[in-house]
Formats: sequence, structure tokens, C-alpha cells
Amino acid sequence: MTVGTEWMIDAEGCKPDLLRDPNVVRGLCEQVIDDLSLRVVSPELWHEFPPPGGVTGLFLLTESHLACHTYPEDGVATFNLYCCRSRPEWNWAEQLTRLLGAQRVSVRSEIRGSASTYSQVGDAVGGRGGIER
Amino acid sequence: MTVGTEWMIDAEGCKPDLLRDPNVVRGLCEQVIDDLSLRVVSPELWHEFPPPGGVTGLFLLTESHLACHTYPEDGVATFNLYCCRSRPEWNWAEQLTRLLGAQRVSVRSEIRGSASTYSQVGDAVGGRGGIER
Repeated sequence: MTVGTEWMIDAEGCKPDLLRDPNVVRGLCEQVIDDLSLRVVSPELWHEFPPPGGVTGLFLLTESHLACHTYPEDGVATFNLYCCRSRPEWNWAEQLTRLLGAQRVSVRSEIRGSASTYSQVGDAVGGRGGIER
Repeated sequence: MTVGTEWMIDAEGCKPDLLRDPNVVRGLCEQVIDDLSLRVVSPELWHEFPPPGGVTGLFLLTESHLACHTYPEDGVATFNLYCCRSRPEWNWAEQLTRLLGAQRVSVRSEIRGSASTYSQVGDAVGGRGGIER
């Protein structure tokens, strides 16, 4: 029984200063939520890890959840968007290139709720109109 | 740059009464956290959806996050455990069979942080010593 789709987005080569700035990361997550008309149903959770660590944000949505982790020491940011309604469209590659300076963005999706479903894997090169799933 | 591993666990054929009981679902998540010595770094988030909906729980961990969604109307529970340290061992198939009455449990894992990594897909049949990754 399929209950939703999960997108896993991994961005590499990001600018460390942006990854450790909670306002930048929070703003990015809020833009995703606004653009996709997602509904937050409880207070969001944020945590700043001590240097050289980054930030973690978790949003509990009517549609399921959005999670973000940043790793300034590695130039990496990862996002999970788990959504129980039809596939949202957001240009992760373009936006993460613009907002975090990402040099490479990977977007993968997984169908959730059924053991008989299998993975889809896609790579999207930042700023070059890569594949979004 | 690899920054962690994410486990996606999908359980089907669960007992609806257990999936809509926040104490059962919370207890299960707390058992995962205790057994794997994970550290919760901010208040956990819980939401109960109106019937026939289930519950959602989000835990912000030092190691990343644990998320749980239940769908009593479909007999499904899904879990995400994102962990930035070495692979934790937890027998999801056995435990979800015991605690939720799951008839089938799928455990998948994804390496996070690198666009060059690809998916692993594994199925584990509840209560029969299925594959754990």
C-alpha cells in the first residue's frame, strides 16, 4: 500500500558560511514550504551544532515532513521531503545552486509504504537544468 | 562526501488499533533510541491526525533524525532513521512484527551526501529473520 513519496536531496560543494547560517537554511526550508503550499502543523525544530558543525531543521507537515541537515565542514547539505500527496515540483538543483552555492545536486525519490517498490536514482547537476524527480 | 546513512523502514499489514495509539508508537520510537544509544537534542514533535489518520513523530538527534508516520487506514507504518555515525543494528522486522503486528517489513538504506552513490533495496519478511541493512 503506497502512502507517499520521499525525496532525498543531497547538495555538494556548498559554501560553508551559508551552511552554518541558520537564517539562510531556515529561509530555504520556508521557501520550499511556501512554494509547495505545504502545511506545518506544529512548531518547527532547529538545532545548531557546535563548530565546525552545521544546523538541523525538522518540520512536521500535514503532508508528512521536511528535514534538513547541513555539514559546513564537508560543504554538504541534505534534505528529505516526505509527502503523502501528489508529487510536488521544486527545482532543487537550481535553487540550491543559487541559495547555497551548490556545485552538484542529487535528487532521489522512494515510494513509501510498500515493500514491493524499488528505488529510483537520479543525479542533477546544479545550474544546468538537471533531472528532477 | 558521505555524511551518513539513512534507513527507510516500511511496515505493512499492521494492526490499525496499534497504529493509532500514540503511546504504542512513541514507545516503539523510544525503544529504537534507547537500544541504539541515540541522543535526542530537542523536544520531540508529535501530532495525532483526526480519524482515520494516524500519528507522526519527529526526533532531532545528535546523530541526525528519526521520523515515524502511521496510517491505520492502510495498516502501514513508515520510519526514517538518518544517522551520521556507523550503522546501527536494530531488528526492525522482528520488532515491528512484535510491536505493531506487521506482516511484512521492508528495510532500505541510502548513503547520504554524495551524488555518486546509489540505492540499495532490500525486503525483509516480518518474523522470518529477513534481511536487515
